[in-house]
Amino acid sequence: MSSEPTGRHSAAAPAGFQVYDTTLRDGAQGEGMALTVADKLAIARHLDDLGVGFIEGGWPGALPKDTEFFRRARTELTLRNAVLVAFGATRKPESRVEADPQVLALLEAETPAVCLVAKSHVRHVSEALRTSLDENLAMIRDTVAFFRREGRRVFLDAEHFFDGYAADPQYAVECVRVAAESGAEVVVLCDTNGGMLPPRIADVVHEVAERTGVPLGIHCHDDTGCAVANTLAAVDAGVVQVQGVVNGYGERCGNANLITVVANLELKMGRRVLPPGRLAELGRVSHAIAEVANQPPRANQPYVGLSAFAHKAGLHASAIKVSPDLYQHIDPALVGNDMRMLVSEMAGRASVELKSRQLGFDLSGQRDAVSRIVERVKNLEARGFMFEAADASFELLLREELDGVPTRFFDLESWRVIVERRADGEVVSEATVKVVVKGERIVATAEGNGPVNALDRALRQALERLYPQLAELELVDYKVRILDGSHGTGAVTRVLIETSDGETEWTTIGVDGNVISASWQALDDAYMYGLLRQHAGSGDPAAQGVSTAGPRTR
Amino acid sequence: MSSEPTGRHSAAAPAGFQVYDTTLRDGAQGEGMALTVADKLAIARHLDDLGVGFIEGGWPGALPKDTEFFRRARTELTLRNAVLVAFGATRKPESRVEADPQVLALLEAETPAVCLVAKSHVRHVSEALRTSLDENLAMIRDTVAFFRREGRRVFLDAEHFFDGYAADPQYAVECVRVAAESGAEVVVLCDTNGGMLPPRIADVVHEVAERTGVPLGIHCHDDTGCAVANTLAAVDAGVVQVQGVVNGYGERCGNANLITVVANLELKMGRRVLPPGRLAELGRVSHAIAEVANQPPRANQPYVGLSAFAHKAGLHASAIKVSPDLYQHIDPALVGNDMRMLVSEMAGRASVELKSRQLGFDLSGQRDAVSRIVERVKNLEARGFMFEAADASFELLLREELDGVPTRFFDLESWRVIVERRADGEVVSEATVKVVVKGERIVATAEGNGPVNALDRALRQALERLYPQLAELELVDYKVRILDGSHGTGAVTRVLIETSDGETEWTTIGVDGNVISASWQALDDAYMYGLLRQHAGSGDPAAQGVSTAGPRTR
Repeated sequence: MSSEPTGRHSAAAPAGFQVYDTTLRDGAQGEGMALTVADKLAIARHLDDLGVGFIEGGWPGALPKDTEFFRRARTELTLRNAVLVAFGATRKPESRVEADPQVLALLEAETPAVCLVAKSHVRHVSEALRTSLDENLAMIRDTVAFFRREGRRVFLDAEHFFDGYAADPQYAVECVRVAAESGAEVVVLCDTNGGMLPPRIADVVHEVAERTGVPLGIHCHDDTGCAVANTLAAVDAGVVQVQGVVNGYGERCGNANLITVVANLELKMGRRVLPPGRLAELGRVSHAIAEVANQPPRANQPYVGLSAFAHKAGLHASAIKVSPDLYQHIDPALVGNDMRMLVSEMAGRASVELKSRQLGFDLSGQRDAVSRIVERVKNLEARGFMFEAADASFELLLREELDGVPTRFFDLESWRVIVERRADGEVVSEATVKVVVKGERIVATAEGNGPVNALDRALRQALERLYPQLAELELVDYKVRILDGSHGTGAVTRVLIETSDGETEWTTIGVDGNVISASWQALDDAYMYGLLRQHAGSGDPAAQGVSTAGPRTR
Repeated sequence: MSSEPTGRHSAAAPAGFQVYDTTLRDGAQGEGMALTVADKLAIARHLDDLGVGFIEGGWPGALPKDTEFFRRARTELTLRNAVLVAFGATRKPESRVEADPQVLALLEAETPAVCLVAKSHVRHVSEALRTSLDENLAMIRDTVAFFRREGRRVFLDAEHFFDGYAADPQYAVECVRVAAESGAEVVVLCDTNGGMLPPRIADVVHEVAERTGVPLGIHCHDDTGCAVANTLAAVDAGVVQVQGVVNGYGERCGNANLITVVANLELKMGRRVLPPGRLAELGRVSHAIAEVANQPPRANQPYVGLSAFAHKAGLHASAIKVSPDLYQHIDPALVGNDMRMLVSEMAGRASVELKSRQLGFDLSGQRDAVSRIVERVKNLEARGFMFEAADASFELLLREELDGVPTRFFDLESWRVIVERRADGEVVSEATVKVVVKGERIVATAEGNGPVNALDRALRQALERLYPQLAELELVDYKVRILDGSHGTGAVTRVLIETSDGETEWTTIGVDGNVISASWQALDDAYMYGLLRQHAGSGDPAAQGVSTAGPRTR
């Protein structure tokens, strides 16, 4: 990976130090993770933005979805920083590498690099693989050499290495040596079962490095709650590659959290492992990937969590104001986070002003408006809204408070949705919308493949004659999250809708006990924002037919 | 604390090694934690069951709730293992300790031990406390001596110690020395801002121990994701007390997770720190405290999480059957947890067989049935089903394939849901269900606070007369996930419903392009499984009125 010194730290990053992300492969193994190919492509782009050196995309051949990912990646994924890696296994015992279907599928992924998993634990060779120790070495030798001949960079994941080293250090080391001699660039020592503590990791890495001289990597799991510390201990002991997963997703207790590892390496250990300026993207990338993976962000996640720099006011409040550095281990801005006072309104004002500036509104000197906006945002967020993810809804709210009246292109009278499963098994969704547009009352009914789709079509149909430019709008994403899991179907539902007009995309939000009402709110905002954009684009901001009557639904 | 050797480990626990819990004090500072006095008493009893040596109950005087806790603890809390500790600060600058209201409130808590927080960082003394370095030492001396004269055991928390040691090691060490000389039993070095990594913790503990000879403790926060490893590094460096919080609750990123620390000390470092037999209580106590604190248990929490010993990959399943120890870092029973096989798209025959065995079905010798089940699971998962999270739906599928016909307690004719936003702004949800139960056609209509709630109520109303035991069923959780974010509202929706009958909980799943249809499928399975459980419980498995006609909706 390319990593230029930023001049911020004294120690230089080791030449060619590699940050290797396996969110899309090992992270996807986590319970409750179910990434589509589109999700995986989106995550890969975020990882590339962050500046990781390597992105392990999946296991082609073993998982049809991953085969598809690599196929689509060839045309749909342009990486600026990262090298795409396909994961696979060494060839089957007693077979020819050139004829192994899994090996060939890996080759057909057409990635510049492959990562091969291999056994290095004598019992795993005999009991899981059911072959001889020599044959396992031959499998490593043949498969690594095969991919080198095909012009690929090769990494080798030595599975169960630390347990294997305890069982038979001689053999484990031999696996490392054979892999390197056959052309593996880095041999990654894996604590596959996650049972190690840092001192043992450090000792083994030291010993293997000394005995082989091979460039080593580290791959840890969090079963002792020490995956991050284990990874750092391995770096101290000389590894040149760290593998990890964004937000620590992964099987059982998860993989080493790559966000935390990178922040510690950069900020605590003085190693530059990301391209200049990217460290401040950690927070954004962590949250964006959580969103795509549909995993609730962990508020207490180190460095990037919502609570990571939150201070309960009280004892320390005045001192924090004078010397924040006394109460924070780093400046949160370094990792794209913010100090947050849990009782004080100050943090709220600052972030509203900052956010508004980002959207092109200068609120300096408008103290009252800022107070009103902060108050309203707080009330709405207490009810489950989350404006961080819904810029367009926030902008509508902002305009409303600044203009004093809501911008309305149409007024709602009522809507109705019917979903019916008929006796013949067919399910039909139908929606009716009644609106007043430019003084005209319009009733429109449409069917859809679900209640929200029907509602969207009915609304579009109602508006399209008087706002023909709505034809360009398309709903590109729809997300639902139940916010309070303790009241069954009576819980509060948050809906996020992403809309595109072909040029840009915007996200709107709705929150309600009723999923359809929440969806309506988000749809309403989505159309409102789209119309606003188009009128702004026409140079006619307070455009024709804009009604300002009636409060917003919310 | 009392800690008898169990004979399981070779190394002996250090004499008087102390496990010190601060869930009720520092843990309660966590964002979103709001413990009542009753909650705190309940948690203290669980901690005592687990066998921790010390329970820090709160800060009397500073927090009225904590004053009340200690008052009630005197009559309502009988501890068998633990010593109750009250937390407080050293006296105010330039004042008499005997006249300090905060000190007196601490005394009035009437606990056998107190823990005093004191500054040990020169900048905190001058900028936060705004007093002289000498006066701070006098405050430590006076307050420790006061409580010793009053017959209390005294611990001293040296706040910001590691940062303070970096700023002025001489002064930080002097604070430790003064505390010990005045009668503090253990001086606890606190990484208050949580910014340390293990090597630094180890170095400082070593140095301070060497320079002072004072018995030391450790108190870590997780801001670098290393709180557990930092705590263990301090133990290796010689501390005799570990402070932590159950499940890692606490301000910002939380405190060192005491559950993980204890498991690592016992199982990885060969130290006996709990009374004999208590280690297997870790899982139960962790979950019970999460329940009382109303915090969702973290599935991937080391040792005790629901996913901590869950296996997903098909690759491993066949080998796990042979040698579970190859794929688990410890036997999960040691900490009161279980191995769990996840059925997933990565699973093959082995995991289906293993999963079935866990559910009480022996599939050995039923090769055809296993093939059919694997095939069906794969097809359904390709469409978005995810059986790892929906055991009950998997069991229904399993029974269906084994019995050859689906078990039906009722047959659906049709359902219809109407959600309407009226002109007056009110939103009404109404559902109608038409079913045939025990030969009788029943039509039921109900309103709800959303479409799924209405559907649930209508179905319950339709069935309740003929299955009165359904009154016990309650929907306790409802989750929605949109699976493919690239088709707007036309995407596929996955619904998970968790249902309880007061004794146990089960999860069912539905997947459809239409959120209401997906919810219906999950509801249908939920009721079906609940009825099956009740009939199985009645010793009447193929119970009366069970229709086997017609294919399942899915």
